[in-house]
Amino acid sequence: MIDTMTQERLSGLSRFYHDALLQDCVPFWFPRSVDAEHGGFFSALDRDGTLLDTDKSVWVQGRMSWMLLTLYNTVEKRPEWLAWAESGLRFMEQHCFDTDGRMFFHVTAEGRPIRKRRYAFSESFAAIAYAAHARATGNERSAARARELFEFFTRWNFTPGLMPPKFTDVRPMTGMGPRMITIVTAQELRENLGDSAELRGWIDRCIEEIRRLFIKPDLKCVMENVAPDGSIIDHFDGRTLNPGHAIEGAWFILHEGKYRNDASLIELGCQMLDWMWARGWDNEFGGLFYFRDVYDKPVQDYWHDMKFWWPHDETIIATLLAWTLTKDPKYAQWHQMVHDWSFKHFADPEHGEWYGYLHRDGRISVPLKGNLWKSFFHHPRALWYCWKLLAENRG
Amino acid sequence: MIDTMTQERLSGLSRFYHDALLQDCVPFWFPRSVDAEHGGFFSALDRDGTLLDTDKSVWVQGRMSWMLLTLYNTVEKRPEWLAWAESGLRFMEQHCFDTDGRMFFHVTAEGRPIRKRRYAFSESFAAIAYAAHARATGNERSAARARELFEFFTRWNFTPGLMPPKFTDVRPMTGMGPRMITIVTAQELRENLGDSAELRGWIDRCIEEIRRLFIKPDLKCVMENVAPDGSIIDHFDGRTLNPGHAIEGAWFILHEGKYRNDASLIELGCQMLDWMWARGWDNEFGGLFYFRDVYDKPVQDYWHDMKFWWPHDETIIATLLAWTLTKDPKYAQWHQMVHDWSFKHFADPEHGEWYGYLHRDGRISVPLKGNLWKSFFHHPRALWYCWKLLAENRG
Repeated sequence: MIDTMTQERLSGLSRFYHDALLQDCVPFWFPRSVDAEHGGFFSALDRDGTLLDTDKSVWVQGRMSWMLLTLYNTVEKRPEWLAWAESGLRFMEQHCFDTDGRMFFHVTAEGRPIRKRRYAFSESFAAIAYAAHARATGNERSAARARELFEFFTRWNFTPGLMPPKFTDVRPMTGMGPRMITIVTAQELRENLGDSAELRGWIDRCIEEIRRLFIKPDLKCVMENVAPDGSIIDHFDGRTLNPGHAIEGAWFILHEGKYRNDASLIELGCQMLDWMWARGWDNEFGGLFYFRDVYDKPVQDYWHDMKFWWPHDETIIATLLAWTLTKDPKYAQWHQMVHDWSFKHFADPEHGEWYGYLHRDGRISVPLKGNLWKSFFHHPRALWYCWKLLAENRG
Repeated sequence: MIDTMTQERLSGLSRFYHDALLQDCVPFWFPRSVDAEHGGFFSALDRDGTLLDTDKSVWVQGRMSWMLLTLYNTVEKRPEWLAWAESGLRFMEQHCFDTDGRMFFHVTAEGRPIRKRRYAFSESFAAIAYAAHARATGNERSAARARELFEFFTRWNFTPGLMPPKFTDVRPMTGMGPRMITIVTAQELRENLGDSAELRGWIDRCIEEIRRLFIKPDLKCVMENVAPDGSIIDHFDGRTLNPGHAIEGAWFILHEGKYRNDASLIELGCQMLDWMWARGWDNEFGGLFYFRDVYDKPVQDYWHDMKFWWPHDETIIATLLAWTLTKDPKYAQWHQMVHDWSFKHFADPEHGEWYGYLHRDGRISVPLKGNLWKSFFHHPRALWYCWKLLAENRG
């Protein structure tokens, strides 16, 4: 176990993330995920890249377009990256909006709707894709579309009574998810369209609500769902913690603390990371549990102890960012633990990219590399973010 | 491995199931699952019987009432069994019906609705509970209620356009579930209220539809979901097989073949069992996989290789029933394999009853004994059915 990051390790990691992004991850997904016939992206790829299902995820159209445009904006102006992203944007525009202005969740290859969900995360991922497109091309319509979709997303999530309840209205519950996603979406719009009082206001509001409703110092944890007044709903779903999600939220707040140079935000993000690392890290087999019960009771979701790819990608970012902001050696240690465990168990040296779903002990559950949820997003974002962060820190 | 059932093994198994039912399973659930305050049954019990969640499942109210009444009708007239079942029926009547006549799925301890689903299985479980109550007490109103609920259930499932589609109507899909449950519900009404042309007609229709739409001799399998014309929907959900469910359906058809002394039904049930045993049995670790892909592609559900309690209970019944009807020694072998694996891995010698959710290799995932789905139903039904079947066969 290392105590601190040496310059040598920093420089090795920076190269490692750079190469993993551009020589492993990007070539796995492209060009094979681009639908040359109908536009947009397939994501249900088997271990070797074979297409398993032609259906398309609306989340994926926005997320993959955003990731490609971010590489275009910050790495290299490769024309194919822009062209593929524009194919994703066109597919969304033509096929992914319902007549009420809301987006679908799951459509056929041709763009016929299979499923629409009550929540509006599709809209937030479309918003960041349009914002990155506006920066890449100067297209004013894309900038306007990004702002409209952000406005739609925040209105849908924060206007009481607008989003239908999950089931009945007998036991209302509110989630950390919409707050986290509002923060990162506003950060992306700021990055690509410029700062505004409105974006800053949304970030402030969501951080305040996370502090007030979801952070529980007495229990040393971050709740995933609470009653509207922040109290714990003592039933299976109310007690369920999602450590990877809370750690993802932690780094959005650390990122904000860094941007604003605000020590209180850095303290908050580190606190969230510390508590949820303690809750989520599996001391027996390594890796992060998917769900835990706040009182250590049995979780209803029987696959609770599986190791999913994305919490590991998010924790790689969070620990590295916490270390760069605090230089606390425990974060360098945690970063090495999660980095080493993840690349040992998720990586596929034969066909590239990461598996998505491992059993608790690291054995592969399903060998596929993508589906409606897993695509070219969490993993390349982590590689890109960590590479750029280390490049800054090597100064 | 045994080749045939000896009289000695038959008699030992009969005692084993009798004792497991009355000395292990019943005392685990009762009286602790009965809600003395509001009536009805809790089911979210931890390993040692501690209550984990006070919410109530509407399926569970009907299923536990039915199981208690079946024991009352066929084992012993214990007044507490009748009283507890009547508490479940009263709770359903008072709290589990919506204003449109349909039932909820999940309610609070007091009976306030948390969730209603688009499908109507709650109604089928209520129907069998009322039918068993009519037999136990001669209550004509319960008999009428059972018939009404059966009529409601079949109308909801078999009137085109009545049940809303799962998502959009772009890719219609029809399931084996409603056919299977119609068969077993009609069998229960026949058992407790007497035979009728209507019940026989529903059983005939559902068996014919299973044969025509779900049975695939070229692929040697029973599909779980197909397009309305029986064709395979070549997407993740259309390709997913549920071996335990198909084997449960197989024994409903074997039961019918036995009742009617119809060799073609016995042949059909055995065929379904043979194919789905081949698809579902885990030759490496033992036990039955939860899901498989019809073309052996990766399944979308990442917990696909877990071992759930209920497919094992259903396969214990199916293999024993197939053996009693055919005396084919392979069924005696399979019965011993699934019986031995199940009682070795699911049973909890310390606190009684079965765990519900194991990892592929038989390790426990969550130690709880009940939740909204697992209750006093699949396991006691298997113990009761097998005990009674062996008692007949020792004859």
